[in-house]
Amino acid sequence: MTTRRRTPDATRRSQATRRAILTAALELAGEVGYERLTIEGIAARAGAGKQTIYRWWPSKGAVLFDALLMLSEGQGDESAELPDTGDLEADLKTVLRATVDELNDPRRSEPMRALAVETLLDPALAADFAERLDEPVRQIKLRRLRRAQQAGQLAPDADLDVAVDMIWGPLERRWLHRRGPLTAGFADAVVETALDGLRPR
Amino acid sequence: MTTRRRTPDATRRSQATRRAILTAALELAGEVGYERLTIEGIAARAGAGKQTIYRWWPSKGAVLFDALLMLSEGQGDESAELPDTGDLEADLKTVLRATVDELNDPRRSEPMRALAVETLLDPALAADFAERLDEPVRQIKLRRLRRAQQAGQLAPDADLDVAVDMIWGPLERRWLHRRGPLTAGFADAVVETALDGLRPR
Repeated sequence: MTTRRRTPDATRRSQATRRAILTAALELAGEVGYERLTIEGIAARAGAGKQTIYRWWPSKGAVLFDALLMLSEGQGDESAELPDTGDLEADLKTVLRATVDELNDPRRSEPMRALAVETLLDPALAADFAERLDEPVRQIKLRRLRRAQQAGQLAPDADLDVAVDMIWGPLERRWLHRRGPLTAGFADAVVETALDGLRPR
Repeated sequence: MTTRRRTPDATRRSQATRRAILTAALELAGEVGYERLTIEGIAARAGAGKQTIYRWWPSKGAVLFDALLMLSEGQGDESAELPDTGDLEADLKTVLRATVDELNDPRRSEPMRALAVETLLDPALAADFAERLDEPVRQIKLRRLRRAQQAGQLAPDADLDVAVDMIWGPLERRWLHRRGPLTAGFADAVVETALDGLRPR
């Protein structure tokens, strides 16, 4: 293995190139869709060499993954928290409505769907995704629900792992399979139904 | 367009070949996974010609789709119904536990996951899937929930579209993304949580 010592300037240039490549990947994925996204196309848009990209990433899926991590800065951050005004229902609606907005924006939605599909095809990428993004985000959700449970706003025996699937699953599912519109009304209905349950109260 | 008139024997042979091809596709998808599934492999296992397969199906995804329709005989049938003993909770647990068993069987699970991935990549296949399998099955679920709602077992204002996502979504999501084990206990927890809700009662 060879290592090159870098001057501060070289490091800065390298960071700038990296950002240009990730930004180009996001833009192109939103414009042409994942199927027609190529390393060549990303290189051309970023004004970088194909070999530069291949030196840093093994596949277009890996480029997109890092691009999404860049976009969601802080989301995979262990110390990030969901809003906590003390009103769980209002906070969850705020969070899910923001997700609806994000998923209705093709610049974010198309790369995210592409990455979701890639993780289904590529177990190594799936493991990386689970460790670096999915699991930290799940822990953030669990922390918010645990605080609500401690405050008596959730049933003491409610299974919070199931709760996460129940609150975030319907939106993700409808989005991933392009089933039906994603609206603020749907976000609200999911939160209310998950909290109140389907039986009469 | 040319049509050939078929003798009853030729039709029977043709049906047998079709079944052999669909069975081979399911077996191979379960054994080698979707990525390594090929039309050549299916043809060899079925003892059929590659050209025969291409005459009937445009892609391996299309073969698998028909294979799964063959497996789930009756599931896409408009007149099929979910169990109705009068006890909604028990009936939903029965249904979800059966799904858990199905999803833990690689002969069914691998082709189903492959098809799910294909529908994400191929909008035409997705539309066909939605029309021929997903929507009829959703209507069957909605009918069972509507009967429970009429019997006063579900809140009169419960949104049954959301309810379907809430009851069947968590299992599908955990399965599709290979997150965590699929067990009868998880199936039961999902049903109980969806019915009772997360708030204290």
